[in-house]
Amino acid sequence: MMNFRTFLFPLLLLLFQILFTFLLGFHSEYRYFPVTNVTNYESPPRGLVEFYYSMFTDIHVMMFIGFGYLMTFLRRYSFSSVGFNFILCAFTLEWAVIVRGYLFDWNTTNQKFIVDVQSLATADFVSASILISMGAVLGKANPVQLILMALLEVPIQVVNEYIGVHLFCAFDPGESMYVHVFGAYFGLAVAFVLYRRNVEDSPHEKSRYTSDIFAMIGTIFLFCFWPSFNAGVATGIARLHAVVNTYISICSSVIGAFLMSNLVKRGRFDMVHIQNSTLAGGVAVGTIAGSNIGLHGAMVIGTLAGMISVLGYEFLTPRLKHIRIHDTCGVHNLHGMPGFMSGITGIIVASIGDRSGYLTDLTDSCLGGGVFRDNGTQSGYQAAGLGLTLGMGLVGGLVTGIILRLPIFSQKENDFDDEIHWHLPEDSHESILQNHPSARL
Amino acid sequence: MMNFRTFLFPLLLLLFQILFTFLLGFHSEYRYFPVTNVTNYESPPRGLVEFYYSMFTDIHVMMFIGFGYLMTFLRRYSFSSVGFNFILCAFTLEWAVIVRGYLFDWNTTNQKFIVDVQSLATADFVSASILISMGAVLGKANPVQLILMALLEVPIQVVNEYIGVHLFCAFDPGESMYVHVFGAYFGLAVAFVLYRRNVEDSPHEKSRYTSDIFAMIGTIFLFCFWPSFNAGVATGIARLHAVVNTYISICSSVIGAFLMSNLVKRGRFDMVHIQNSTLAGGVAVGTIAGSNIGLHGAMVIGTLAGMISVLGYEFLTPRLKHIRIHDTCGVHNLHGMPGFMSGITGIIVASIGDRSGYLTDLTDSCLGGGVFRDNGTQSGYQAAGLGLTLGMGLVGGLVTGIILRLPIFSQKENDFDDEIHWHLPEDSHESILQNHPSARL
Amino acid sequence: MMNFRTFLFPLLLLLFQILFTFLLGFHSEYRYFPVTNVTNYESPPRGLVEFYYSMFTDIHVMMFIGFGYLMTFLRRYSFSSVGFNFILCAFTLEWAVIVRGYLFDWNTTNQKFIVDVQSLATADFVSASILISMGAVLGKANPVQLILMALLEVPIQVVNEYIGVHLFCAFDPGESMYVHVFGAYFGLAVAFVLYRRNVEDSPHEKSRYTSDIFAMIGTIFLFCFWPSFNAGVATGIARLHAVVNTYISICSSVIGAFLMSNLVKRGRFDMVHIQNSTLAGGVAVGTIAGSNIGLHGAMVIGTLAGMISVLGYEFLTPRLKHIRIHDTCGVHNLHGMPGFMSGITGIIVASIGDRSGYLTDLTDSCLGGGVFRDNGTQSGYQAAGLGLTLGMGLVGGLVTGIILRLPIFSQKENDFDDEIHWHLPEDSHESILQNHPSARL
Repeated sequence: MMNFRTFLFPLLLLLFQILFTFLLGFHSEYRYFPVTNVTNYESPPRGLVEFYYSMFTDIHVMMFIGFGYLMTFLRRYSFSSVGFNFILCAFTLEWAVIVRGYLFDWNTTNQKFIVDVQSLATADFVSASILISMGAVLGKANPVQLILMALLEVPIQVVNEYIGVHLFCAFDPGESMYVHVFGAYFGLAVAFVLYRRNVEDSPHEKSRYTSDIFAMIGTIFLFCFWPSFNAGVATGIARLHAVVNTYISICSSVIGAFLMSNLVKRGRFDMVHIQNSTLAGGVAVGTIAGSNIGLHGAMVIGTLAGMISVLGYEFLTPRLKHIRIHDTCGVHNLHGMPGFMSGITGIIVASIGDRSGYLTDLTDSCLGGGVFRDNGTQSGYQAAGLGLTLGMGLVGGLVTGIILRLPIFSQKENDFDDEIHWHLPEDSHESILQNHPSARL
Repeated sequence: MMNFRTFLFPLLLLLFQILFTFLLGFHSEYRYFPVTNVTNYESPPRGLVEFYYSMFTDIHVMMFIGFGYLMTFLRRYSFSSVGFNFILCAFTLEWAVIVRGYLFDWNTTNQKFIVDVQSLATADFVSASILISMGAVLGKANPVQLILMALLEVPIQVVNEYIGVHLFCAFDPGESMYVHVFGAYFGLAVAFVLYRRNVEDSPHEKSRYTSDIFAMIGTIFLFCFWPSFNAGVATGIARLHAVVNTYISICSSVIGAFLMSNLVKRGRFDMVHIQNSTLAGGVAVGTIAGSNIGLHGAMVIGTLAGMISVLGYEFLTPRLKHIRIHDTCGVHNLHGMPGFMSGITGIIVASIGDRSGYLTDLTDSCLGGGVFRDNGTQSGYQAAGLGLTLGMGLVGGLVTGIILRLPIFSQKENDFDDEIHWHLPEDSHESILQNHPSARL
Repeated sequence: MMNFRTFLFPLLLLLFQILFTFLLGFHSEYRYFPVTNVTNYESPPRGLVEFYYSMFTDIHVMMFIGFGYLMTFLRRYSFSSVGFNFILCAFTLEWAVIVRGYLFDWNTTNQKFIVDVQSLATADFVSASILISMGAVLGKANPVQLILMALLEVPIQVVNEYIGVHLFCAFDPGESMYVHVFGAYFGLAVAFVLYRRNVEDSPHEKSRYTSDIFAMIGTIFLFCFWPSFNAGVATGIARLHAVVNTYISICSSVIGAFLMSNLVKRGRFDMVHIQNSTLAGGVAVGTIAGSNIGLHGAMVIGTLAGMISVLGYEFLTPRLKHIRIHDTCGVHNLHGMPGFMSGITGIIVASIGDRSGYLTDLTDSCLGGGVFRDNGTQSGYQAAGLGLTLGMGLVGGLVTGIILRLPIFSQKENDFDDEIHWHLPEDSHESILQNHPSARL
């Protein structure tokens, strides 16, 4: 049995890599339209590499550098943070291309789903969800559990988004509901199930001077490319709105976060706030990023999101242990609350037709006969989308957590410690000593 | 009074965030032209996201990762370097969008200024100026002083550039004069006013092995994306010129800097030179980046700039204390001198009509009736633009410095030390001990 | 004599900088077509900045950040890794623009070669070759030797690629043969000649905790932008193929590498594998990146490449010393074997006409009258291209190595140690002590 568990990780990867190969082999095809006459940037052909590629690589960097380095802040867990983020994201991208292909891009004429640059970008969106969930269990879940989590979370995320976007027609161009809210509450539910009391007392859940600077690399790349995330699949004026609104909103959350960090820390700053809450404006503006909310609207939303996020880190996170939740990266503060806030603003803005622009994008297949909706009905469906996402995230996370907790998957862990997972350079132990001067004697 | 000063930073941010919100609410609008027939890349519509966006994100990364990490070289001030760069740049972008909007993009028909991707990119240009000035006072000015500096510097920079570009019609596509020269001399003037003798003796103004490697991240992103900076708002053949000239010139300054560093250090290299002087070619080619200077022209300019910059670090900077200037990052060597050099080449190249291409871009509103200018006159106005910028930078910096020195803003500082501004991880103090072997005994 | 050798490095750079200036001055010109009617993205004008620029900057970042930081893993050689990568790449770019200009882009009507954004990108491809070779001798060759290596390697690489692409018409859009195989075997041949037995016993050829995290920055940027490398100069459907195939293949090699690392290390991971073998899929798919190999094809190739690369690091590299080869970065595992694998798949895929698409790209000037080739002949020429590259790489590397070994160029080295090349911050020595607890007593 011991042997089997040792080989569980490579076995799992190999098995699914073979499965994916067959699924792609039988059911996928490249999507390309010869683009010989592109004069209309309002609705460019989906196959146009040139239109989507530059934003796609930005989003790609957000996933691997952004999330990967943001999580390196733990002083003894930096290898695992950036390494597990790497494998988890790569695995998720493959799986998401397939699942989204079947559900969103199925071509009934030849029984295959199409793959183009937009497929790659939307797979990155799915992976954002999974990496957010990873943030809630960082340092506590082993690689087998992470891969299993991705395996289960991807189809739930994709189905949830499919219902939300195609049936409810609840719009969310920056994916604040379908990615951020979903990923955060899914992760928190998993963390709830996996909760162990002694985690709270781990001496390793701390940063070090260099690990905090590494984490800032992640923060700043996320900051810089967030407009690409929110505008990634938008076209026409919605693309301009998404770029400008996100730029203003995320700059505002930098202001809001520094301001509030300085207040609650009485004249100093806290790196945890600066690494995370500064980005809340990118999340909070997502649902309405493509709408005409005005630059002042973006500014108000971003500033509030940054401030609320800091308050969450300072006052809410430490209290979550009372309900058996340990949220390592504070994803509730960066993705949960700001994402929820974005969903709410989406409900409000939907009620103002010429602001949201939502009604012009409705199709026949929307529940309730989308094309005949009025603003109030659209607001209702936006609320339904938000509620659905919360529910699917929490229930999906609970079920997933219960599976991950099965003895076969959960091996005894040395929390927040690379040593159990990696061959470490010889100085690693030294630098830990150095962090505990007493241990030196 | 103590209390008030503790809250000065959040208060200041909150106040201006509210003010900005109102200004944007009343006076800004998105700028979008439906782009249904783009066949002419010579003069694309300004609203075309696709044309400007990819270079804009490059420039964005230069500001936040480039400048932010370049300044992390100080071993006890890395949190502040990357953190204050973050808040200062975000604040500046908001403020610059507004100020440039009023001055450059005012639409008299509906009493609003327009905002599009080009507005966002040019706001980044303004922020470059402010971050350069920050480099001169890094480790010596507190966050309140930095925010106040941005508040005052932004309108002065924008007015200076407006006079230079729209009245003098002194061209500077890569912003070597209006951003680099202005920012450097403004910063040096502020540093002059804030000079305190004991700064020179600080034991903390040193790098450590890791902080120097962090700083190189900044250097190399600045290097890689500099062609985007110089070509950011150019169109047609000027865009190609700017990309190629900057690529050649900045590669050449890498050669020049390594060469000269090895010479002055007698066979070794100095990280300060490699982190900074390697980039001098990007600055030095700015004013003439869009011109037909030939690849050999770009090579000569870049090589000389790299060499001169190293000489500046080695021989000039240490002597500046005699005139009461302490220039932490050596912005005079990276931005001041190479920017000045670029202004001079602009004067020379302007006198060769078919090289510079300046005369074809003149408008009626230029001083002296631009459209009828000959090459000599254009050279004169280029010189006027350079002189104006020097003057505005120095006087603006002096006045700003005097305000920043008011007792209410200048609190007693622990120079080059994160401890006064941040909650630090516990290892931070340890690693300082380790840098002072004597302190161990 | 001592004096002369001290000045060899700056002298060499100065001399060639002057030579390059004259060559560019006499023989180069910007290439620009007024682009007033771009409706056909199938075959855009080569001068179109907009079409190539975004991928070009990605490739640029791969060279300077990617290769530069990937090599920082050595705990006492990080300055040299990122610094020498910087100067070597800048030097190579200048030289490659010129050599490729003469050979590929010579305009006989005005006796000049043209330079546009594609020239800049292909110069980056050449530099990839040289940086791969640098990886084989990292820590063992001094800066003079590196510059000389680039000087000799660039023309050999360019001539080899010219024969392969223009005479054999052996296609390799992702440059797996002409860049990766060539660079790897060239570097290994140089390493063979420069071999010294005592290198194997160096106490400094190890990583430290932070240097491994720095190296991951390089890894992940290489990963994220690899699709741009393989699609960099492709157009039409080949561009879509190259992007999608590379995305899938390199994600698969992440899976393959983690899987195999976990197997050979019995339940743990090894940073060397994660930093390098994860990228093997980008190399292995290069030759056929633009072909219709199916997403499942890309997945199989990538997974195998990742696994084989780990096996190479684990079992092959340690045994290379028996044939007097010390391969510091293991370039044979990341570039040599996966590149060779890519060449082989190219031979196979060439035999399937409608898969490879190679036959439609043949010209009259191909050896054997390219336009009349059948699939079998094309396979033969692909094999000839691979064989040629191996031969040119090995012979070129041997000759270059013999020259580098001349006493005038090879000074006594302190292997893998920054101290001999850099002025180091005072903590550098401290942190070495700390890595050798015994040295403390």
